[in-house]
Amino acid sequence: MEVRNKKVLLKHYITGFPKESDMEVVTGTITLNAPEGSKAVAVKNLYLSCDPYIRNRMTKHDEPSYVPYFIPGEVLSLLNSSFFTLFTSSLGTLTGFAVSKVVDSDHPDFKVGDFVWGMTGWEEYSIITSPETLIKIKYTDVPLSYYTGLLGMPGLTAYVGFYEISKPKKGEHVFISAASGAVGQLVGQFAKLTGCYLVGCAGSDDKVKLLKDKFGFDDAFNYKKCDDLDAAFKRCFPNGIDIYFENVRGAMLDAVLLNMRVHGRIAVCGMISQYNLEKPEGVHNLMFMIMKRLIMEGFMIFDHYHLYPQFVESIMPHIKDGTINYVEDVVEGLENAPKALIGLFTGRNVGKQVVVISRG
Amino acid sequence: MEVRNKKVLLKHYITGFPKESDMEVVTGTITLNAPEGSKAVAVKNLYLSCDPYIRNRMTKHDEPSYVPYFIPGEVLSLLNSSFFTLFTSSLGTLTGFAVSKVVDSDHPDFKVGDFVWGMTGWEEYSIITSPETLIKIKYTDVPLSYYTGLLGMPGLTAYVGFYEISKPKKGEHVFISAASGAVGQLVGQFAKLTGCYLVGCAGSDDKVKLLKDKFGFDDAFNYKKCDDLDAAFKRCFPNGIDIYFENVRGAMLDAVLLNMRVHGRIAVCGMISQYNLEKPEGVHNLMFMIMKRLIMEGFMIFDHYHLYPQFVESIMPHIKDGTINYVEDVVEGLENAPKALIGLFTGRNVGKQVVVISRG
Repeated sequence: MEVRNKKVLLKHYITGFPKESDMEVVTGTITLNAPEGSKAVAVKNLYLSCDPYIRNRMTKHDEPSYVPYFIPGEVLSLLNSSFFTLFTSSLGTLTGFAVSKVVDSDHPDFKVGDFVWGMTGWEEYSIITSPETLIKIKYTDVPLSYYTGLLGMPGLTAYVGFYEISKPKKGEHVFISAASGAVGQLVGQFAKLTGCYLVGCAGSDDKVKLLKDKFGFDDAFNYKKCDDLDAAFKRCFPNGIDIYFENVRGAMLDAVLLNMRVHGRIAVCGMISQYNLEKPEGVHNLMFMIMKRLIMEGFMIFDHYHLYPQFVESIMPHIKDGTINYVEDVVEGLENAPKALIGLFTGRNVGKQVVVISRG
Repeated sequence: MEVRNKKVLLKHYITGFPKESDMEVVTGTITLNAPEGSKAVAVKNLYLSCDPYIRNRMTKHDEPSYVPYFIPGEVLSLLNSSFFTLFTSSLGTLTGFAVSKVVDSDHPDFKVGDFVWGMTGWEEYSIITSPETLIKIKYTDVPLSYYTGLLGMPGLTAYVGFYEISKPKKGEHVFISAASGAVGQLVGQFAKLTGCYLVGCAGSDDKVKLLKDKFGFDDAFNYKKCDDLDAAFKRCFPNGIDIYFENVRGAMLDAVLLNMRVHGRIAVCGMISQYNLEKPEGVHNLMFMIMKRLIMEGFMIFDHYHLYPQFVESIMPHIKDGTINYVEDVVEGLENAPKALIGLFTGRNVGKQVVVISRG
């Protein structure tokens, strides 16, 4: 069966901030079948996840990156969703995490009607040739869009980054940058469940209010209105920071380094402020790594997928009893995906940025 | 008994590179007795250790530092050698690690004639009021000066930084900056004992030769003659670096970050290139902390003193059978101590910088 298939393409490699005009939405067709013997699945894509790392793939890097850059304008009709091949081969359409519904399958693990999340194309339908790393959705009695965030890659990122990398103890003092984002809001709630003192920053007064009122942060500030980050930290953390969950870098990291407590830990999850710079800003205060005997650890979620089932089982009761909240910023329609994506870099979104292609 | 006591004083706080004229050698007197009930010891200082961290104490910092700054010109006749008090109180003369001989004692653990190493003044004689952290020297059938280096603080630093912080595995690829220095030369030999592939850099062709000929480095380069550090790393480590033992920072760290292997470790021991800068250089490539899932860990030896006995027992056979070598740069006379100290920052010394006050 051949159907219409709208797709988002990257028109050219970019430098600096991405613009809507760097992408285009084109309409093609696709034959919706998984050929016999192919082990492929055909999926209808429902909810797309807008994630900061996608920006990295829109620039052609000289240095090898952890994700290959996109190939502008080239449309590949077969998509390979194995991380190991996906992340070492180049793809045509923009790709990213999404929630999808299986519409045809030649793979024994997937049947028509299954809901899955994983890597797919930014398009209405995709053929996934190596569906092994698609994750079948077990609980469908929560909003399916949660599998782009709270119950998907950002959720697992928060879980691993907080519990495995930051090694929190009750009573420790935790700071989170980009705290209202897809990952930050969840790290914060994990910190409160652990009994930590929790402060976050975000880029608007509304987001700051959200942190305090919705996610239980003990304190929060709007970094855009903050002339003196060091003073803000000294006010919020007179005895220093034990755990910094790093999502932004730049001047924030330098000010945090000044205010870390001895034997503190810095979990490096993202550095969104740097993604659009040709030459990243310098970090000047690394000397405090020694003086305060700090550990800084970068991590990527692909190394920790085996923890996903344990993560889902542990968080599901908290979602159902309301002890964990989640805020999404939902945009309707694939044609609005480019705008939603670039909004991440100006902080336009409030909470996890999701694009709805179809609700079923 | 009152005797002459030459001392090295800091004349004023400094910025930038230290100069000989920032210090002065004055002659006073000292009464060589440990008063009854004081639990003090009187020591004759034999070998002084010149260490880069001393530079840090010659500047008055706004931010609290791990070691208090010196008080210029002020001579305190009683010295407190407990790390916990020493490092939170300010002292008059320059102080540092040294090998000393007990000449009077009111402390049950020390008797006249004992050799010890630990914190003392840069002077001929000192009264140590809290000698608990002085370490009594067990093996005197090796050069006593080794207790300023190979068997002292730098040796334990190398041991802890390599085995505890870097967590090496046989066959891993190790890079050491300032590799011929007091710590670097020993880290290198530990790496070879572990079965690692080992490359170091140093600041002269003679030092590079020393690395290869004396310490068994597989490869080494003179960073002062290296226009393109990234190319040097790509040549020495075509498959990347697993462990970087960081002694210098600056451009070196940025180039290393580009060339680390996934899951690599960076042990941050020192950042000597930064000690004389008013504003430290920026480090730009921290993004690779994420992409390569790196761990960077700063450490200070004061947290690891309990490992000293185990370290001495494990290294002593290697010293005696010659499988571990150690190169010292020995300067005679306390009056030459200022010159020896500042030589660390231009790389004048070859190997561990020691100042001999007296040989017994």
